[in-house]
Amino acid sequence: MDPARLERLLKDVAAGRADVAQALDRLRRLPFEDVDFAVVDHHRLLRTGVPEVIYGESKTVEQIVAIARRIVEAGGPLLATRLDDAKAAALVEAVDGAVHYPLARIVYRKKPGRARPPRGLVAVITAGTSDIPVAEEAAIALELMGERVERFFDVGVAGLHRLLDKLPRLHKARACVVAAGMEGALASIVGGLVACPVVALPTSVGYGASFAGLAALLGMLTSCTPGVVVVNIDNGFGAGVAAGLINRRGER
Amino acid sequence: MDPARLERLLKDVAAGRADVAQALDRLRRLPFEDVDFAVVDHHRLLRTGVPEVIYGESKTVEQIVAIARRIVEAGGPLLATRLDDAKAAALVEAVDGAVHYPLARIVYRKKPGRARPPRGLVAVITAGTSDIPVAEEAAIALELMGERVERFFDVGVAGLHRLLDKLPRLHKARACVVAAGMEGALASIVGGLVACPVVALPTSVGYGASFAGLAALLGMLTSCTPGVVVVNIDNGFGAGVAAGLINRRGER
Amino acid sequence: MDPARLERLLKDVAAGRADVAQALDRLRRLPFEDVDFAVVDHHRLLRTGVPEVIYGESKTVEQIVAIARRIVEAGGPLLATRLDDAKAAALVEAVDGAVHYPLARIVYRKKPGRARPPRGLVAVITAGTSDIPVAEEAAIALELMGERVERFFDVGVAGLHRLLDKLPRLHKARACVVAAGMEGALASIVGGLVACPVVALPTSVGYGASFAGLAALLGMLTSCTPGVVVVNIDNGFGAGVAAGLINRRGER
Amino acid sequence: MDPARLERLLKDVAAGRADVAQALDRLRRLPFEDVDFAVVDHHRLLRTGVPEVIYGESKTVEQIVAIARRIVEAGGPLLATRLDDAKAAALVEAVDGAVHYPLARIVYRKKPGRARPPRGLVAVITAGTSDIPVAEEAAIALELMGERVERFFDVGVAGLHRLLDKLPRLHKARACVVAAGMEGALASIVGGLVACPVVALPTSVGYGASFAGLAALLGMLTSCTPGVVVVNIDNGFGAGVAAGLINRRGER
Amino acid sequence: MDPARLERLLKDVAAGRADVAQALDRLRRLPFEDVDFAVVDHHRLLRTGVPEVIYGESKTVEQIVAIARRIVEAGGPLLATRLDDAKAAALVEAVDGAVHYPLARIVYRKKPGRARPPRGLVAVITAGTSDIPVAEEAAIALELMGERVERFFDVGVAGLHRLLDKLPRLHKARACVVAAGMEGALASIVGGLVACPVVALPTSVGYGASFAGLAALLGMLTSCTPGVVVVNIDNGFGAGVAAGLINRRGER
Amino acid sequence: MDPARLERLLKDVAAGRADVAQALDRLRRLPFEDVDFAVVDHHRLLRTGVPEVIYGESKTVEQIVAIARRIVEAGGPLLATRLDDAKAAALVEAVDGAVHYPLARIVYRKKPGRARPPRGLVAVITAGTSDIPVAEEAAIALELMGERVERFFDVGVAGLHRLLDKLPRLHKARACVVAAGMEGALASIVGGLVACPVVALPTSVGYGASFAGLAALLGMLTSCTPGVVVVNIDNGFGAGVAAGLINRRGER
Amino acid sequence: MDPARLERLLKDVAAGRADVAQALDRLRRLPFEDVDFAVVDHHRLLRTGVPEVIYGESKTVEQIVAIARRIVEAGGPLLATRLDDAKAAALVEAVDGAVHYPLARIVYRKKPGRARPPRGLVAVITAGTSDIPVAEEAAIALELMGERVERFFDVGVAGLHRLLDKLPRLHKARACVVAAGMEGALASIVGGLVACPVVALPTSVGYGASFAGLAALLGMLTSCTPGVVVVNIDNGFGAGVAAGLINRRGER
Amino acid sequence: MDPARLERLLKDVAAGRADVAQALDRLRRLPFEDVDFAVVDHHRLLRTGVPEVIYGESKTVEQIVAIARRIVEAGGPLLATRLDDAKAAALVEAVDGAVHYPLARIVYRKKPGRARPPRGLVAVITAGTSDIPVAEEAAIALELMGERVERFFDVGVAGLHRLLDKLPRLHKARACVVAAGMEGALASIVGGLVACPVVALPTSVGYGASFAGLAALLGMLTSCTPGVVVVNIDNGFGAGVAAGLINRRGER
Repeated sequence: MDPARLERLLKDVAAGRADVAQALDRLRRLPFEDVDFAVVDHHRLLRTGVPEVIYGESKTVEQIVAIARRIVEAGGPLLATRLDDAKAAALVEAVDGAVHYPLARIVYRKKPGRARPPRGLVAVITAGTSDIPVAEEAAIALELMGERVERFFDVGVAGLHRLLDKLPRLHKARACVVAAGMEGALASIVGGLVACPVVALPTSVGYGASFAGLAALLGMLTSCTPGVVVVNIDNGFGAGVAAGLINRRGER
Repeated sequence: MDPARLERLLKDVAAGRADVAQALDRLRRLPFEDVDFAVVDHHRLLRTGVPEVIYGESKTVEQIVAIARRIVEAGGPLLATRLDDAKAAALVEAVDGAVHYPLARIVYRKKPGRARPPRGLVAVITAGTSDIPVAEEAAIALELMGERVERFFDVGVAGLHRLLDKLPRLHKARACVVAAGMEGALASIVGGLVACPVVALPTSVGYGASFAGLAALLGMLTSCTPGVVVVNIDNGFGAGVAAGLINRRGER
Repeated sequence: MDPARLERLLKDVAAGRADVAQALDRLRRLPFEDVDFAVVDHHRLLRTGVPEVIYGESKTVEQIVAIARRIVEAGGPLLATRLDDAKAAALVEAVDGAVHYPLARIVYRKKPGRARPPRGLVAVITAGTSDIPVAEEAAIALELMGERVERFFDVGVAGLHRLLDKLPRLHKARACVVAAGMEGALASIVGGLVACPVVALPTSVGYGASFAGLAALLGMLTSCTPGVVVVNIDNGFGAGVAAGLINRRGER
Repeated sequence: MDPARLERLLKDVAAGRADVAQALDRLRRLPFEDVDFAVVDHHRLLRTGVPEVIYGESKTVEQIVAIARRIVEAGGPLLATRLDDAKAAALVEAVDGAVHYPLARIVYRKKPGRARPPRGLVAVITAGTSDIPVAEEAAIALELMGERVERFFDVGVAGLHRLLDKLPRLHKARACVVAAGMEGALASIVGGLVACPVVALPTSVGYGASFAGLAALLGMLTSCTPGVVVVNIDNGFGAGVAAGLINRRGER
Repeated sequence: MDPARLERLLKDVAAGRADVAQALDRLRRLPFEDVDFAVVDHHRLLRTGVPEVIYGESKTVEQIVAIARRIVEAGGPLLATRLDDAKAAALVEAVDGAVHYPLARIVYRKKPGRARPPRGLVAVITAGTSDIPVAEEAAIALELMGERVERFFDVGVAGLHRLLDKLPRLHKARACVVAAGMEGALASIVGGLVACPVVALPTSVGYGASFAGLAALLGMLTSCTPGVVVVNIDNGFGAGVAAGLINRRGER
Repeated sequence: MDPARLERLLKDVAAGRADVAQALDRLRRLPFEDVDFAVVDHHRLLRTGVPEVIYGESKTVEQIVAIARRIVEAGGPLLATRLDDAKAAALVEAVDGAVHYPLARIVYRKKPGRARPPRGLVAVITAGTSDIPVAEEAAIALELMGERVERFFDVGVAGLHRLLDKLPRLHKARACVVAAGMEGALASIVGGLVACPVVALPTSVGYGASFAGLAALLGMLTSCTPGVVVVNIDNGFGAGVAAGLINRRGER
Repeated sequence: MDPARLERLLKDVAAGRADVAQALDRLRRLPFEDVDFAVVDHHRLLRTGVPEVIYGESKTVEQIVAIARRIVEAGGPLLATRLDDAKAAALVEAVDGAVHYPLARIVYRKKPGRARPPRGLVAVITAGTSDIPVAEEAAIALELMGERVERFFDVGVAGLHRLLDKLPRLHKARACVVAAGMEGALASIVGGLVACPVVALPTSVGYGASFAGLAALLGMLTSCTPGVVVVNIDNGFGAGVAAGLINRRGER
Repeated sequence: MDPARLERLLKDVAAGRADVAQALDRLRRLPFEDVDFAVVDHHRLLRTGVPEVIYGESKTVEQIVAIARRIVEAGGPLLATRLDDAKAAALVEAVDGAVHYPLARIVYRKKPGRARPPRGLVAVITAGTSDIPVAEEAAIALELMGERVERFFDVGVAGLHRLLDKLPRLHKARACVVAAGMEGALASIVGGLVACPVVALPTSVGYGASFAGLAALLGMLTSCTPGVVVVNIDNGFGAGVAAGLINRRGER
């Protein structure tokens, strides 16, 4: 709550410049405006281009379209995840400029115009070809936020030289997202080679003892490399937003 | 690998300014200096004050003291975790200026002098009193890195108003560490109220279905709030370093 | 067993008012009438409108219809859960007045007439849109019991202000059902804000480390807020009945 | 927020009865007083005798004593759980009238005087002798709240007739707490025999596939009997408070 | 190995009644005939009518039919489990007298003629209607072995009086199979009421925290009632054979 | 309930041979005598020598001694498990003739006299030396029941020939108990070699992926050999009683 | 890094036989050529016929075909796993000589010509018919490597004599792959009978407590037989390559 | 069974050179000699120096000493694991030349003399200092087998350059044991850099989500690098024996 605004309001009332009814109305909303510090945060994020995500799995096509329309009307970038083909088709039909990315099961629409010039670089890295869909969810979330993204795909630990070859470019990144399934060792390796924070993104790629991503998740959580942080299995969106927020730390 | 240095060396050889034996010796080490991009990173971290951590649990007291001496001689800040009283006493005896923090089971020594002026603020938050030891591990790691830390302890979700009361100060932080056991809900709440990245730090505080921190870990991983990233259960050191690296993104 | 009734019976036998065969027949049934305290309880529940639930998943359509008919003939309210479209259609066809709610995969029929005037209020709350089907199972179970229900949907912890906005109305409830998937933190938050018992209802909404509702379940079980009790994942019916029974505690 | 109070305050300012500084000070605190709806709830609970619990396991003896003193000075009933003998002795020494119950590892002190006449009856039931310590934690929490408690110990399913023998008295209860380890079947049985809500309290009694209470927990969560709700393993305090709150539903 | 047979053989060789080649041939097979104690056991089982089971899930229809033909030609009773409709149809077509039981997903054929007069009684009990398919797998396996079976379906713990009503008949059984999903409490209850061994058969009926039968399995394993033994989730065949073997203990 | 007894009683009342008060008293107890079918079972077990087991782990030494005295006074055999040395010493001191078996952590006392001549043979088999304590719990339970037991220790699958060597004697058993930790394969092997039911008894012997007996438990549950049934990890008592009950099937 | 090559290069530079630019170019690549020891290893493997595997599950048909073409053009043997029928058909169409093995869900193509004469023998063993598809993946991988393979299918522990019958041939193998689902005991048994290393290959065959191969995996990991090593559930390819590499140890 | 021996024996009987009693005696033992193929294998292993391991955890000191004496008298090398200090002291006292290695909790004694000249090299690698005790168990087992071992300790993935530095020497190994806790990534990395089989040895070093070695175990099982095989957590002995057997493949 902004004491200056409050004082101004009370002085207006004391001086008769504002009547009691007006002041009462404004004060009624104050507590929520106060808690609205949170809301303001959301608005601020929105203004700077953090996409509102729609988790499509357990929603009906009607719910998804309705929420998407509200977001787009509010001028925000749009990202809907875990859409089957029918839901995606309906959403593309309903929202002008929406793009369907079937492999990643997402639909997105960039916000027209550009909120801010990109600054710094976020590297999005995958261990294998199969991790690309989840990594793309992260990369697109970052791009919708206005970040500059460079993709390094299929550089897993079985071919370590492929990764070492990329080191000079990786060193330019201010944040890394590392998507890997199976044993998820790539996050530790990258974390040991770069100086920036690494957002480890376990994927459900694998079988047997990978237990749908559990092996990669545990491996990333127990990484010996400090500076590695982890998000949920297959949570490309979360990894992208976290990396984007990290990248913005240095801005005014 | 630095092409300029290589070119210079080869020119010296071509010009007779360096003999083959000398050059051979230097080149022998080059690949490792090249891979030393990684090492250089470590050195850079070291220079800027990231403490080398000694995980004390499965090491002998002799090993711990030996490693600690090597770190201290190299001029770095020291942090040793999971020390029983005997190991801690031996370490305090062996290293001048080492401080024992029994509740957190750590011993640390700040690097004499100051590497860099603190910039930005990192908030270290706990849900309850019982989470303080783990949170202190994070806070001290941050302080050893030279970061400015503010502690917000015992502001868990059962007394939500205590947390809301702290909002204005929390909004000043450029990164948050949120330590919580039991259901770990505080990380989601904080993530929804601030705009900076939140490093969620699950603790093993709890019993029964908390399964030694598993409930908090899963809760934090599945947080609905984007921008929340997670480290291993009770990994205060890792949370601190990650938050410190995030805080530094904006520096030159 | 009612000693007065026994004594009366024995006196009748002693006085010749009842013959041995009659008395024998009545006494034969007595143990079961005694254990029938349980049965009577069920009957009492039935009379006051607790719906008999049919768990449809592993039953054939013939079994479901047969059980439903028996319930309806006995005059009870009907609730069948986990029905695919074919089973639901067959049930709606077989039972007059049965309503199909596809999203929640249930079919129900209110008992004609009204057993009792509603008293108190039960709040049914969800964290997100995706939790609504499970929450509706609870809400409809409550309505079939004759309770008064108010729905508060999509007020999850990411938008805490939305929940705080509802506080005055929430405070009127005598019991709350809180349905949430993912990390399930909402139950703790609500439990900290209201004075009545909170029935936490974990849902299987989520992916990855939510492990089909396990994360929400563990989070709710380890809630720091006393007064929070938990039911099985996606068990909307059980949550509704428990909240209804709690609401009735104050009646005569 | 109470509009009447706000209007009165503003009128006072407008009329010059209150100056701006005074009004500013009061308004500053208003949002928190508003969120204090929660706090007020806590106060209300406190007034009516819900004990503040101190979870002793990961706290130092100094922290425990300090918190206990604050609670006692505030006039509340005291309950500290999971205390080893040293912590318990220190607490008993520090707090007049504190009682140590070693088997249950708790220390408690009843609030002098009586907040309210007991109403209704809460039954606290155990399957075996080994479940008594956890059940006592529930029973004492209830007694500290001022509830009337009746204990039914060692009536597990292996000797079903022992339980049936207690039915007439069980039917008088307005809420039941059922503590059981191993397979935890007793909660289902009791739930099928009584009409009131049953708070199932899994205990960690058992070995092997009981997995420290997991078997009992899962069994209770998947109970076929509606009206059974569950708390965390060994959470006697939580079960007691929940049962107490349920018992109070009928009061004014 | 039968010494008498060996001695006879050697004496024949010594006396010239058997030549070396013949004796060699017989002795070559002796070790396997010796280990064939196992084989003989199988043959004995076969003779007494234990059906050879074909686990159909991961076999091709050709494999299933080929194995079935071999069994039938050898004169044994046939039981094939976990068959989808296509496999079942092919098997029914291929084997005269084979019967398809779609709900239990099995095909079986009784051995023509009767191996032995039934003796004793095996009770097959289910908690609910949904457990019947698995229980039928057990009952049919028992009938194929020539045992006398009595079915007690849908007598779960929610309606305890239904079970108590069956006690006199249950007491006649020499072995019980108790099939139950969800919390699986029925096995403990039955075990406490009868004097014969109880084969507990957990089923995968349930959802959420039943974790596909895990809750029932753990509950049955941790049963407080001695004399309860457990088989794998949904392993009706195994439960039936075990109960049959138990029932035969008393025979000559 | 015995109709003949009831009829006799009623005729006595009708004829004045019994007064109403007497009859009332007897009838009051009748329902429990009826449910006492269960109790009678227990009594029957007791008469035939099934020991009442005292699970010592979570009981105080006073509770253990008190229960033991009650059992011994009732004339039953005594078995107390999971006793630390202090509890065992107290029990041996309190009960004449009680024997302490420290390795198995049990105290037992045979019932003076002999209830019944042993019949059949129960084989108790272990995979390794480390499984002996748990196996002895089973063997002693069997002996207390009056069964004849033969021990086959340390015949695990790594030395298969040791087991095959024992086959002729194993074939004489009417029931087998197979105790094994680690992978627990021995139960499957034995089950394939004998014709009688095999009670598989997983032990917690092992480390790492044996997860305190879980590997053995799962291996035994998923045994391909029909006729194998399983009890809880380390539940020697339960395995012994089950094998004893199986052995008795053939008796009158 | 090869010092001789380096020295030669530097001498060329010193002598003017190589100019600085050329030398710089060669030295730039040296570190990666050095790390290329790894690459060279892969090449060596490739030359000797280790197939490059394509994990088909999470790749598109286009990706699979493109990778397969690259491998075939490079002259390597081809193995693609976890292909549904559509992917397999496309691959067979795209690659000359590719063979589809539907049961094992693989497509493979032998390398034309023969890299090396087979040496030693690798035994591939299954417990049951259902384990054959996974075992074939191992056997075909071995054959693509040029190894000699002998298959021993359906020799599980329930029919131990079948396995013992094969012992003389098994003793000729220099490495064994043992594929088994359910309890996976066969690996221990084989390990106790042969002297060569045993690669245990758990399969997901089974149901209930086999938890999709977990029981077999744990059983194999906790095998008491030294010399048994384990690969991931259903990882036929990995088991085959490991056995092939073991078989080659003795070659020059 | 050796037909030639059998034929000879029978001819001797036929010719009167052997009497029936003698022949009978020899034939009695034949089946076991046949199964003794296994035993012979064990003997062969023993002769070549595979140590018999004594798992000390659940054995008494008397049992351990007795078994050790039997092994030593048979002339074998001795290895006893998981010994507390008391057991180790007793063993060292009882067996001449036994050496206690407290950190690894083992006691061993080399076989006097040398069975065979070492051939090839086995590399034993650890990620960290804390993994050394388990790795030493493997290294000592290898040395007791007569293998040549080279240790590479503390070369984990956080300092990748340390490992790359060792590559030339690693490439000389014919088998590798890689011991790592936490995320266990080192096994994958080594597997991608060498051409020989890698025995991955997960250790229980770590905390939180390492779940006592589970994270490392799952990571190693799901390694993308073919040729990596896994043993149980902390099973240094098993890893050593497996690597030794692999190393011997090439011998005559």
